[in-house]
Amino acid sequence: MTTPTRESCVELDVKDPLAGFRDDFVIPDGVIYLDGNSLGVLPAHTASRIEHVVTQEWGQGLIRSWNDAGWFDKPRTLGDRVGALVGAGPGQVVVCDSTSINLFKALAAALTLRPDRHAVVGDRDNFPTDLYMMEGATGSHHERRLISADGPTLADVLDEQVAVVVLTQVDYRTGRMYDMAAVTAQVQAAGALMIWDLSHSVGAVPVDLDGCGADFAVGCSYKYLNGGPGAPAFIYVASRHQDAATQPLAGWHGHARPFEFTDSYEPAPGITRFLVGTPPLLSYAGLEASLEIWDRVDMAALRAKSLALTDLFIELVESRVPDHVEVVTPRDHAVRGSQVSLRHEDGYAPMAALIERGVIGDFRAPDLMRFGFTPLYVGYADVWDAVDVLADVLESGVWREARFATRNAVT
Amino acid sequence: MTTPTRESCVELDVKDPLAGFRDDFVIPDGVIYLDGNSLGVLPAHTASRIEHVVTQEWGQGLIRSWNDAGWFDKPRTLGDRVGALVGAGPGQVVVCDSTSINLFKALAAALTLRPDRHAVVGDRDNFPTDLYMMEGATGSHHERRLISADGPTLADVLDEQVAVVVLTQVDYRTGRMYDMAAVTAQVQAAGALMIWDLSHSVGAVPVDLDGCGADFAVGCSYKYLNGGPGAPAFIYVASRHQDAATQPLAGWHGHARPFEFTDSYEPAPGITRFLVGTPPLLSYAGLEASLEIWDRVDMAALRAKSLALTDLFIELVESRVPDHVEVVTPRDHAVRGSQVSLRHEDGYAPMAALIERGVIGDFRAPDLMRFGFTPLYVGYADVWDAVDVLADVLESGVWREARFATRNAVT
Repeated sequence: MTTPTRESCVELDVKDPLAGFRDDFVIPDGVIYLDGNSLGVLPAHTASRIEHVVTQEWGQGLIRSWNDAGWFDKPRTLGDRVGALVGAGPGQVVVCDSTSINLFKALAAALTLRPDRHAVVGDRDNFPTDLYMMEGATGSHHERRLISADGPTLADVLDEQVAVVVLTQVDYRTGRMYDMAAVTAQVQAAGALMIWDLSHSVGAVPVDLDGCGADFAVGCSYKYLNGGPGAPAFIYVASRHQDAATQPLAGWHGHARPFEFTDSYEPAPGITRFLVGTPPLLSYAGLEASLEIWDRVDMAALRAKSLALTDLFIELVESRVPDHVEVVTPRDHAVRGSQVSLRHEDGYAPMAALIERGVIGDFRAPDLMRFGFTPLYVGYADVWDAVDVLADVLESGVWREARFATRNAVT
Repeated sequence: MTTPTRESCVELDVKDPLAGFRDDFVIPDGVIYLDGNSLGVLPAHTASRIEHVVTQEWGQGLIRSWNDAGWFDKPRTLGDRVGALVGAGPGQVVVCDSTSINLFKALAAALTLRPDRHAVVGDRDNFPTDLYMMEGATGSHHERRLISADGPTLADVLDEQVAVVVLTQVDYRTGRMYDMAAVTAQVQAAGALMIWDLSHSVGAVPVDLDGCGADFAVGCSYKYLNGGPGAPAFIYVASRHQDAATQPLAGWHGHARPFEFTDSYEPAPGITRFLVGTPPLLSYAGLEASLEIWDRVDMAALRAKSLALTDLFIELVESRVPDHVEVVTPRDHAVRGSQVSLRHEDGYAPMAALIERGVIGDFRAPDLMRFGFTPLYVGYADVWDAVDVLADVLESGVWREARFATRNAVT
């Protein structure tokens, strides 16, 4: 195989069937953005969509827009569209609240379905809020068992006491991906329920929740989905669980008859009972705009390009700067998400130097430089150029003078 | 006293010291908007502020805006500004999540402070989500005691078993207002904690949380504060409780060191521990824009105009259509919020007829026509014109042909 050149990368961009999507996004001048796994870029038509919601739906429609503009149903209508991206049939996903809060609901609901079991399982490498919520949702009533790459394994901890397992499908640090079908089956075989955190999966890799027989899932829409900073999260509850599961955030938008204003809570049938309060509709407008793009995406083509981009990045890093960094993301396609992480003992400063030079990734303590590859707006020549800057920064030692701003960026 | 005429109302508008604020808002042509207690109108500069956040902070700044645009601190910086409107000193309010979710946190936190008490008290006339959350937050571990105007009274149910009392300060149906200082003192004298729902108070009436020695409060920002549909809510926790109180929505934004990504939850000191997940920043932009107006408002002048508007509305209704409706809102200024509700046995249809004619109020089952008076953008002549339309609708009987749209409007 020939070593890639910038020319060969440009040629790949020319042939790329997804290349046309780049025009659907705003990429700042002089920036190669490899942090879409943290905050996705702005779709080109989002500003006008939001302006419409602000000036027309809110400004002119006012309270009437709850009916006339479909505000009341946005959690469900957008939920079905997000669901289509993760293999969920209609009526199983609502868009609402934050990922953390949705995980709390899923955990609480799962515990109502397994009242006689008193352990919950997570992975030390889950995104931390997932681990924190396990503490918050179970209090002192459940033992929290944590697996990790160094052991114990899932098989080690699964027994008849385990009510629920929570796993972040794609590891936010390393990009390692769980086999959703196999793990779900393993967990369910032990009589437990499975909650998947898809924050680093949705819009990044094909997901088939219904096909895997998943129980619950949660995720965010501000990373690969480009919904905007803090865009609303989502929760999936398999149809078979919806009418038996309850959750304690008993808000009026989850009530069976919210406009009767009764004084006792009665959960709505179906997925609606996982709603709580009034949805932040300006943020929903950002997600709705981005979904107009996602409705047109072929996930198989997206996955093929994602793997090609991450393969290319790994190959270039290993050929250009083999002595400076270690690739910690798996080579095996089957267990790789859409990011590549490089270990560098002083990774914080080199990443600051990259950002100063317009190559935006991020850093995760203690030593990981993280690069996300978003196939809709990142091309092959971008990868070549990014590694070129990386090689310059690492080989020149200029990174020793670089400093991040006052506080780390947000995942 | 002379009966008001349209001319005398116009004269009042000319002399109104708050009249200049009307230009800060967009009022649709042909609309008299008396539903700002449900969804406030659009401030004139909000669209450009949101556009800036979308195209510059998100579009150009991308992940860097978490630091450079102050995104990470928005819940606290906007919290202090909302706090200033309800008599809360700095560091006691954060803007986040929905009112329902914040009430859940406040209830859970209050219960951690009163672990040996096993009853919670609410008012049947609380906004229903407040009652539902009392069920959700306490499960079967606490008795729920409900007071009402028909009894039992607060004094009847307060005893050494009551951990916490939750009251909506201004009744969303009738506009009746609790005396916050007196009730807080009564509750605390019984050893219980007090949670105020200020959704119909903030921006409507003067509130002095610190002066009343309040324990907790929650509220929304999409009604009188004009933050936009579903704008983020707020929670107040008195400084003296912050480090002892915990709440189970243990998200990473409430962690003491969120960027260390540790695997155990450690609540941040102070009010920050009441944050959960990533904030919906586009919705925060709407609130931030509206607060630029609120920072300039004299609350005493606002209250004076609010009472003058509601007095005028009551006087005109009673002189024009005394046989058609009953005023259910208190005449006593001390216990009146900033709305007036009229009882009409078929109130739903007359309200639909009013809305068809551009006078927008709303309806609350079973028989209340509700009119909110927002002194920053409603004038005295508006009140006269609204009653003129109301009189025409009621006296002509045309309302018998009117129908609401498919679903009721949202609170």
